[in-house]
Amino acid sequence: MKYSEMKVNDIYKEKFVATDEKVRTFAATSGDNNPLHLDDEFAKKTIFKQRIAHGMLVASFISKVLGRDFPGDGTIYMQQEVKFTKPVYINEEVEVEVEVLEKRDDKKIIKLRTDVFNSKGDKVVKGNATVMKPE
Amino acid sequence: MKYSEMKVNDIYKEKFVATDEKVRTFAATSGDNNPLHLDDEFAKKTIFKQRIAHGMLVASFISKVLGRDFPGDGTIYMQQEVKFTKPVYINEEVEVEVEVLEKRDDKKIIKLRTDVFNSKGDKVVKGNATVMKPE
Repeated sequence: MKYSEMKVNDIYKEKFVATDEKVRTFAATSGDNNPLHLDDEFAKKTIFKQRIAHGMLVASFISKVLGRDFPGDGTIYMQQEVKFTKPVYINEEVEVEVEVLEKRDDKKIIKLRTDVFNSKGDKVVKGNATVMKPE
Repeated sequence: MKYSEMKVNDIYKEKFVATDEKVRTFAATSGDNNPLHLDDEFAKKTIFKQRIAHGMLVASFISKVLGRDFPGDGTIYMQQEVKFTKPVYINEEVEVEVEVLEKRDDKKIIKLRTDVFNSKGDKVVKGNATVMKPE
């Protein structure tokens, strides 16, 4: 979307699944091969009781929405804050919800709320982002 | 490292390379297949003049350090803020630098500076994180 098309309070939602394949690929790419993400037996003994996705994998779904969809092509990612409020389990579906909070027309800068929810409606990531959308 | 071993002002550094393979894998995992990251011809026409790594791929290197090295095993990731201050180009080496800023002993919570530098010494990511390290 163009900068001019993004209105304060507009919301965009998109679903993603933190599949086992994505978790294993993310582990290899980032180097974060923590057994909490990869090893069922290890994960059973943790406070989470089962394997969980990397928080940054879930955050990467926010990045995908901003870069490809809302606003999408040409977006320059300036800032992202994420609070990991609940675990996301393997193969769990999550929904990224992005809302336009503020626009600064002289710089074409947009501040957004970037939250992620699980299928029960629990917020798993509470976040905000700042992007520039030159066109 | 144990919570008790992490001292305010302690610094940990680790180098990573944003290889083409990592960028392509991150694109597939996150769904962010922006041609700015994947297509040389497209990238030449942008303000960056060449392909750049996803900001969140670079942020995932911070996640790796916190989860695997400093403090490492058992770390619970609570919060991360990243400001993307300069682009990271394909195959560029970057260094993650993490510094202990504050400790809250009753909750075993640690606040950290999490910056990333390129090989020229320019800060490419300015960030901070909060983690819990139960042991």
